[in-house]
Amino acid sequence: MAGKRIGVVLSGCGVYDGSEIHEATLTLFFLDRASAQIIAMAPNIPQHHVINHLTGEVTNETRNCLVESARITRGQVRDMAGVKADELDAIILPGGFGAAKNLSSVAFDGPNATVNPDVSRLLLDMVKAKKPIGALCITPAVLSKVLSGKGVVLTIGDDAGVAGAIEKMGNKHQESGYDGIVVDADNRIVTTAAYMCASSIGEAGQGIEKLVAKIMEMVSK
Amino acid sequence: MAGKRIGVVLSGCGVYDGSEIHEATLTLFFLDRASAQIIAMAPNIPQHHVINHLTGEVTNETRNCLVESARITRGQVRDMAGVKADELDAIILPGGFGAAKNLSSVAFDGPNATVNPDVSRLLLDMVKAKKPIGALCITPAVLSKVLSGKGVVLTIGDDAGVAGAIEKMGNKHQESGYDGIVVDADNRIVTTAAYMCASSIGEAGQGIEKLVAKIMEMVSK
Repeated sequence: MAGKRIGVVLSGCGVYDGSEIHEATLTLFFLDRASAQIIAMAPNIPQHHVINHLTGEVTNETRNCLVESARITRGQVRDMAGVKADELDAIILPGGFGAAKNLSSVAFDGPNATVNPDVSRLLLDMVKAKKPIGALCITPAVLSKVLSGKGVVLTIGDDAGVAGAIEKMGNKHQESGYDGIVVDADNRIVTTAAYMCASSIGEAGQGIEKLVAKIMEMVSK
Repeated sequence: MAGKRIGVVLSGCGVYDGSEIHEATLTLFFLDRASAQIIAMAPNIPQHHVINHLTGEVTNETRNCLVESARITRGQVRDMAGVKADELDAIILPGGFGAAKNLSSVAFDGPNATVNPDVSRLLLDMVKAKKPIGALCITPAVLSKVLSGKGVVLTIGDDAGVAGAIEKMGNKHQESGYDGIVVDADNRIVTTAAYMCASSIGEAGQGIEKLVAKIMEMVSK
C-alpha cells in the first residue's frame, strides 16, 4: 500500500469552529502507519467564526481555515483550490463543526446547505474517477449534499435530525455506533460516526481506525 | 489500571507556539485506551507569541495558553494554578515549542531558563510524592531545569545543544531514537524524543505509546 496518495480535508483547528483535532490527528496517524502519502488540504477562506473553546463563546477574532489547519499538520497543508483528483488515490474528511460551518453551511441550513465550490468540485471529481471517499462525524452530511439524489448510503451515527437531512437530500442513512463503519461498496464511500457518538478519544479512534483500514484496502485493489 | 488520574500539561495549540498537536492527541489517545482518567491543564497566561503555521511568521495576534489548549481537549482543561499533586497519580508533558516558550524560557535561555511557577510547583510536588512523570520531545529540558542538580536521567533524542543544556543543569542526558523511551526508575521519570527525532506522526507515536504504557505500569504498582 506504500505511496498511496490520500487527501485529508481540513477546515480549521478545533472542534467548535474548525476540524475536530482528535479525528484529524488519528486519521493522519492511522494513514501514516499504513505508509500512505498524506496530502492535507483546506480551503483558503476565513472561518465562519472563532469560538473560545474554554467558554464556548464566539470571539471577535478572525482566523483563516488554511492557516489554522496548518497547526494540525505542522505546516504541511495545501490550498484546496489547487488540488486535483488525479493527484489522489482516495480522500478522507475528518469532522468537527468546521465542516458544517466553513466547508459548507450544513450547521445552519441543513438539507438546503451550500458547499464550498472547491470541496464540491474535488468530491465530484473523485466520485467520477471512482476513487474512494472516507467521511467522519458530520462530514457525511456535507458529502450527502454534494451527492444529492444519488442514493448513496452514509452514517452520521444516530442523530435523527442529521439523518433526516441526509434522507431529504436523496441519500440513505444507516445507523451506526462509534465502533462501526458503513461501507457503500458500489459508490466506494466509507463513513463512521466518530464524535457524533463517541464519548472519548479512544471510542472515536475505534471507528476511525477501521475507516482508514477500509480506505487503504480499497485503494490497494 | 482503571481510574488512575493522569495529568496532561498543555501549553497552547500548535507545534510552533503551543503544544505539538500530534504528541498531545496521541498521549490522550493512549491514556484513554488504558482507561486512565485524564486531567488536562495549562497555565492561564498569554502565549509568548502567535506563529502562522503555514508561513512560519510571527503574527500580531494575542492568544492565551489555557484557551488555545482547550481546542486539543474539546473544552476540558483546567487552569494549572488550581491543580494539586494529590489530585494526580502521574503527570505527562507533551512537547511543542509552547513548552519551551510558554511553560518556560528554555527556547531562549537554554540552561539559564526560567520556568512558569505553577509548572515548577506541580512537578516538584509530584517528585516529592514519588509520583511518575512522563516528558516528551523538548519537555525533558523543562523538567531538567525544575530538577536542576538532581542527576536525573533524561532523553531529548540526539540534539547535542539541548543535551548539553541538560548536562549543564546538573542532570544526565541519554541518547535515544523516536521509538525508544528512557526510564529513570529511581526518580520515576520516563522520557521519549517524539518529534525531536521523528519525521512522521507514526514514528512519534511509537515512543509515545511506550511512554504511556510505562507510566500506566508505574502507577498500577
